Amino acid sequence: MKKLKAELVAVGTEILLGQIDNSHARYLSTDLAAIGVPVYFHSSVGDNLDRVVATIALAMSRSDIVIVTGGLGPTGDDLTRDAVAKALGLPLTYDEEAFTTFVKPYFDRIGRVAKPIQQSQARRVGTATFLPNLRGTAPGQYLVHQEKHIFLLPGPPLEMRPMYLEQVRPVLMALLGETMITSRVLRFFGIGEADAEHQLADLLRDQTNPTIAPLAGEGEILFRITAKAKDEDSANALIDPVSREILSRIGQFFYGYEQDSIASVALNTLVKAGKTVSFAESCTGGLATSMLVDFPGASRTLKGSVVAYADEVKAAMIDVSEDELAQYGAVSEQVAKSMAIGTRARFGTDYAVSITGIAGPDGGTEQKPVGLVYFAIADATDCHVFYRLFAGDRAQIRLRSAKVALHALFQRVNENRG
Amino acid sequence: MKKLKAELVAVGTEILLGQIDNSHARYLSTDLAAIGVPVYFHSSVGDNLDRVVATIALAMSRSDIVIVTGGLGPTGDDLTRDAVAKALGLPLTYDEEAFTTFVKPYFDRIGRVAKPIQQSQARRVGTATFLPNLRGTAPGQYLVHQEKHIFLLPGPPLEMRPMYLEQVRPVLMALLGETMITSRVLRFFGIGEADAEHQLADLLRDQTNPTIAPLAGEGEILFRITAKAKDEDSANALIDPVSREILSRIGQFFYGYEQDSIASVALNTLVKAGKTVSFAESCTGGLATSMLVDFPGASRTLKGSVVAYADEVKAAMIDVSEDELAQYGAVSEQVAKSMAIGTRARFGTDYAVSITGIAGPDGGTEQKPVGLVYFAIADATDCHVFYRLFAGDRAQIRLRSAKVALHALFQRVNENRG
Repeated sequence: MKKLKAELVAVGTEILLGQIDNSHARYLSTDLAAIGVPVYFHSSVGDNLDRVVATIALAMSRSDIVIVTGGLGPTGDDLTRDAVAKALGLPLTYDEEAFTTFVKPYFDRIGRVAKPIQQSQARRVGTATFLPNLRGTAPGQYLVHQEKHIFLLPGPPLEMRPMYLEQVRPVLMALLGETMITSRVLRFFGIGEADAEHQLADLLRDQTNPTIAPLAGEGEILFRITAKAKDEDSANALIDPVSREILSRIGQFFYGYEQDSIASVALNTLVKAGKTVSFAESCTGGLATSMLVDFPGASRTLKGSVVAYADEVKAAMIDVSEDELAQYGAVSEQVAKSMAIGTRARFGTDYAVSITGIAGPDGGTEQKPVGLVYFAIADATDCHVFYRLFAGDRAQIRLRSAKVALHALFQRVNENRG
Repeated sequence: MKKLKAELVAVGTEILLGQIDNSHARYLSTDLAAIGVPVYFHSSVGDNLDRVVATIALAMSRSDIVIVTGGLGPTGDDLTRDAVAKALGLPLTYDEEAFTTFVKPYFDRIGRVAKPIQQSQARRVGTATFLPNLRGTAPGQYLVHQEKHIFLLPGPPLEMRPMYLEQVRPVLMALLGETMITSRVLRFFGIGEADAEHQLADLLRDQTNPTIAPLAGEGEILFRITAKAKDEDSANALIDPVSREILSRIGQFFYGYEQDSIASVALNTLVKAGKTVSFAESCTGGLATSMLVDFPGASRTLKGSVVAYADEVKAAMIDVSEDELAQYGAVSEQVAKSMAIGTRARFGTDYAVSITGIAGPDGGTEQKPVGLVYFAIADATDCHVFYRLFAGDRAQIRLRSAKVALHALFQRVNENRG
């Protein structure tokens, strides 16, 4: 397998002014790392011909693959084609056929007439191949020059990403001598990032095909397994044993694949089980319910919720006794339990989930510090109560609490299904 | 005023692998643009000595100010000090006093003992000045070399940002011949980005001190006015007339300053008025309530909410009549009104807000398309009902709906206060 060094160049004054992020750098780097192309440099440069020329020339002098994003629009500020031609000493030629094939059809589709200025988008750098753009007016270009490969891609992410995936990555795979790349994402909750990476340290270090990349955020961790092979079956045959090995080590924290979220797996499990749910939320203030409602199928299982922020609401709306509130306090095992049982009865659902805690920054005591949150899950036979003590600020405590509640619900419904 | 060209260099293989964003580029560029320092290049480079040396040498050859972030840790991967010394042909010398002054105190504060490896963080590039770091172990360094200015800052944003604001920006301001920079942010809701920028086009184009920078996101738009002057009063004297001019043109959409959000101004207005509130949410599923609970003072005004997702919940928990639901449907002016009035009665609050709509992707009809959302705000004397038709996907429709509800509440409470 050949070793090809890549470099990314983003063109656009709005990046240099801080008006937008150069989000392409991370997107492309992640994928290039997954397919085994090391990236050595990222650069961003404004819409200035001399500076873009210098940046392209430097990139082509030191890297095998240069991916340039942005600056392919039709206006005078869009300098990428001119700069690449100048940097490589190549002509830039208007190509009527390219205009008809790659620029005009987009205008036909949206029912407009291409303006003369749009012809600049059909100017070809040397003998470059045009890359069709179904989502915008700027076709990309791909050129091999002195055994270096340069790709010019449009700046808008919704145009750049599919063009990269559909038209650039296959070329890179062919250069690498591979034909197929397949990824699988495994998602975990309830295990720390450091702990997970420690338990998988040898795999993370030694695996080259497939590669394993960890990504962590807000209490969750995911591992992306990426294989290169001649076809999808062969790629999956490489991924399967690695996936099994990871699950054999930290499988008790596994909850889903790919785009799953804790809310979506909780929702799907409830729908599959044909069960309904309601919530009583205090410190989370409706966040757990809202995370479930993010998904279109929510109406098939969610009846509703009470945000019982004030104690009087806990009493009036979901039948928590005032004695219990006075004796144990709103943040207690007893009140969490009564909230879940009262809510289940009021809403007439199969399950009810309660969350009551201290999100801070005020309201903590020595016995009940900020971050202490009680949870209860009531079903037809039982009411399971537990607590967590979270670190972090108010927003983190609330988000983690909502996730823990939904995850516990997911597990409980699964257990009941056997 | 001198014109100084700046360039940003980020060091760290994790950026090149796509594991993290180079978020410093945008943060620093935004602020440098605001104080009038043009940024011509961003580069990211991995933890490889030769490549970092080449990148630093190039940056110092073409820019007046070079800000390098990352690579100041104590390990062998932390190459920035070595690379800068090598690129500039300067010695790198361990400084015992710097260790005692800038590295050791951090360990004292967190009750640990600095390891020998930490001494590498007290190695000085040439005659650089150390920049104290109260939030981590890596002090920064600042060096003037052949009339160029180079700053070495730590990679973690929570260390880099305050070091930049407190120790780098004042130096840059002095170089520019200014002593003070002041910003004011004005926030607007209910006006489109294009419309707002059109109404302020001449100001956005012509203003140089203060500058006006627009930022838009999810239905909101803000303008940051930034002035340079010899002191804060003089800066405010520059900002005041521009702020007044902006408000004279689009003031009816203004809702707050700086870190305000629609939820925080709604909350503060309720607290100031000494009024309580409750919500009945359908398609938003608790999101509006949750946005209010994000702020610590929520318990002073919010009693609670009902997420009335199923129709039977609208009837049982907040007294919407089943006839009304059958006759007009859940997404209707009549039901929105009954939800608000029923919720206000049940919770015994001064205000109640209802939201009922079709968030999609399914459930729309010709008469009631996806994106149609009814709102009602009930108070002691009246119940105000209105609707919006939103574009966007389910998540956007829900978020916009929650913001519109909180904004309408904010306006209603303000009107009632006179």
